[in-house]
Amino acid sequence: MRAVDVIHKKRDGGELTASELTFIIDGYCEGEIPDYQMSAWAMAVLFRGMTAAETAALTLAMANSGDQVDLAPIAGVKVDKHSTGGVGDKTTLIIGPLVASIGVPVAKMSGRGLGHTGGTIDKLEAIEGFRTELSRDTFLNQVNEIGLSVIGQSGNLAPADKKLYALRDVTATVESIPLIASSVMSKKIAAGADAIVLDVKTGSGAFMKTLDDAERLAQAMVDIGTQVGRRTAAIISDMDQPLGFAIGNALEVAEAVATLKGQGPDDLTSLCLTLSAHMAVLGGKASSVEEAEALLRKQLDNGEALAKFKQFVAAQGGDASIADEPNRLPTAPLAIEVKAAASGFVAKIDAERLGVAAMLLGAGRATKDDAIDYAVGITIRKKIGDPVTEGETIATLHARQDGSAASEAKAKVIEAYRFSAERPADRPLLLSVVTADGIERCGAAVQTD
Amino acid sequence: MRAVDVIHKKRDGGELTASELTFIIDGYCEGEIPDYQMSAWAMAVLFRGMTAAETAALTLAMANSGDQVDLAPIAGVKVDKHSTGGVGDKTTLIIGPLVASIGVPVAKMSGRGLGHTGGTIDKLEAIEGFRTELSRDTFLNQVNEIGLSVIGQSGNLAPADKKLYALRDVTATVESIPLIASSVMSKKIAAGADAIVLDVKTGSGAFMKTLDDAERLAQAMVDIGTQVGRRTAAIISDMDQPLGFAIGNALEVAEAVATLKGQGPDDLTSLCLTLSAHMAVLGGKASSVEEAEALLRKQLDNGEALAKFKQFVAAQGGDASIADEPNRLPTAPLAIEVKAAASGFVAKIDAERLGVAAMLLGAGRATKDDAIDYAVGITIRKKIGDPVTEGETIATLHARQDGSAASEAKAKVIEAYRFSAERPADRPLLLSVVTADGIERCGAAVQTD
Repeated sequence: MRAVDVIHKKRDGGELTASELTFIIDGYCEGEIPDYQMSAWAMAVLFRGMTAAETAALTLAMANSGDQVDLAPIAGVKVDKHSTGGVGDKTTLIIGPLVASIGVPVAKMSGRGLGHTGGTIDKLEAIEGFRTELSRDTFLNQVNEIGLSVIGQSGNLAPADKKLYALRDVTATVESIPLIASSVMSKKIAAGADAIVLDVKTGSGAFMKTLDDAERLAQAMVDIGTQVGRRTAAIISDMDQPLGFAIGNALEVAEAVATLKGQGPDDLTSLCLTLSAHMAVLGGKASSVEEAEALLRKQLDNGEALAKFKQFVAAQGGDASIADEPNRLPTAPLAIEVKAAASGFVAKIDAERLGVAAMLLGAGRATKDDAIDYAVGITIRKKIGDPVTEGETIATLHARQDGSAASEAKAKVIEAYRFSAERPADRPLLLSVVTADGIERCGAAVQTD
Repeated sequence: MRAVDVIHKKRDGGELTASELTFIIDGYCEGEIPDYQMSAWAMAVLFRGMTAAETAALTLAMANSGDQVDLAPIAGVKVDKHSTGGVGDKTTLIIGPLVASIGVPVAKMSGRGLGHTGGTIDKLEAIEGFRTELSRDTFLNQVNEIGLSVIGQSGNLAPADKKLYALRDVTATVESIPLIASSVMSKKIAAGADAIVLDVKTGSGAFMKTLDDAERLAQAMVDIGTQVGRRTAAIISDMDQPLGFAIGNALEVAEAVATLKGQGPDDLTSLCLTLSAHMAVLGGKASSVEEAEALLRKQLDNGEALAKFKQFVAAQGGDASIADEPNRLPTAPLAIEVKAAASGFVAKIDAERLGVAAMLLGAGRATKDDAIDYAVGITIRKKIGDPVTEGETIATLHARQDGSAASEAKAKVIEAYRFSAERPADRPLLLSVVTADGIERCGAAVQTD
């Protein structure tokens, strides 16, 4: 087999076989197929697409390119969750303890963040003493004992995906739905879960700008899961503004704790309950999403979800008292108010710009060697649809010092907000649910493009 | 400017500016833009195409990437000819002396062949003593004195094209009309001619399988010439069988000599007259193609074309007596007859297979360090439409020895011929003429796809 023939076949619209895709991925991983053939292939895939069978075969080839985590020592149906990401996304901190509290085992490996704020691992490390590096046995035992562990990604999961993604990034071949879907799913499959719930964002602040595209991506990922025997469901939600109010590592932990007490922001609570309910159904702990959601809401109200969070934090060496006294979390010395320049209604919030503002304050990493300041970040005070009067605070910056970075961050926050004279129409948060049975639009969902 | 953004723009169907194309080509040549970005860009071009303005800008950027030949010291309008290639193509050996004999100066740099038979330079070197390496001054002076010189390509013409072509070859990005057109024209433009006549082949034995594709390629090349101020015309001809009867270096020289005497094969004579007539018109030596063709035909009949050939061979140190005594050319010791296995009409001749057979006999190079045997080759005795009876000779192999290579070559020749019970319909040789004014189909030309 020759790489040039495989590229040629895809270029002309042919369907690649599993052995052709394995040849391409293995050859690329081993350095036998050079970057320049791989990028030409990726561009051909971008134009021609891939069938569900091709996408599944590509995903398996990438999942098989490195370590495969064996979660068999953990009893029960292991359900993983993946989010396509977003500014202020602290769902893992809430969903983990919530579903663990009803007996769904969560053995999660999570990444550090590069960008606006840290990743889940960075957020957890905002809690004093919290250890994110555990041995394999400690990790598995903790899940068997308390139902939940979250550690930093170790080992060599799907190295083919890592190499291909870096290449796609510099060759304008990122925006291909089968390539995005296989990239996400190859890592999830290598991470060993039995079932997967995907949190797919759409809207101006997300990678998938339209609901149609988000549904196509979700369907492609669910199809992969189905083809490789991992039950998979995807929830598509709106990302036209940040989720909740907090952006920044310690600030997001505090908001997660409030949500676990049943006192979180409506949008964050709602999305976490939906994702958790699907995890509970796939994990066999409820027979319907509605039943699961009722059960989970009770766990927020009766303190069980919070108790699981405390147990989890303590098990990994963290200071669990922050759950009762959130002010024990790192706190920034300065609070800088950002005020509205005119009256009206909040019409748009550019989550991307808020993310950049948070990074300028020190909440994220620009390069992988940067240190994160856990204490800093942004609390937004007004969300879309809220009325605002001139001079009213729309956001608070939590800063280490009042220098040029803070000024620049403040300017970004001001730029991020758009106001209108009329109150904008309400936007539903949950748009679609995609399962092996197809796509179901939620009640009020409308096409966004 | 970033390469990834240029790729992205082309991928999404945008029109690249001259400065973007120059950035890409210069960056690639200088090693600042890596192969993997260039191949992704080429694949995007293959899918999206390029406008005439983009194609011209790309061509100029590649022509400017190396040496540019200055033919200004030569008086008159210098007209170059380029053929898209084919088995048994000896047109340059005929056209050069023919047009020089009516005063069109020909200062040609030609390549060596890699493949079936040698290139023009190899064919000329089949003449004892012929020198193909001349100094720049000797070359220019010879053209001024006798109107014609052909030398091996020296210097560094369009290195960007060379590098890009090698990359396209291994990334399935060859078959893009703007990329093929700019590749050909960048070298012609760097070679310095004022006007260019293109000999574009179509049919089963050619790179462009259909007349439509050949016309598209021809139009793209003519458009480039027009945009960069080089008058350009293209003749599209059928390549469903080899041109003339001879395949092999010395054999082709002998056939060229016969043609210059007015005794050549009809198809070869006809194509050479047409190409030469267009060169004469572009060179200002005739006001119409018809007038030029009549004038040139006279030169074949009155000995002027042959006299120019002898003058040219002698000027470059070759044995001009071969024009009168072709048996002084290298001759192979063995003549192996290939006979028809059944009676009928010749329906098809696969020129590619005949080319492979000639190479097996030693007429061409498999790798660039192979030596060529000037004497060997194939004379075909029957062409499409000819009646054949069982046991009649269809071709003669001129071989050095009667070993396994000769047997293999014989088998290839047999495979190359296809017979039918009915006489196949006549196929016209000349199909279309493409100039800045558009495409004109020749009388009997029909669509081939």
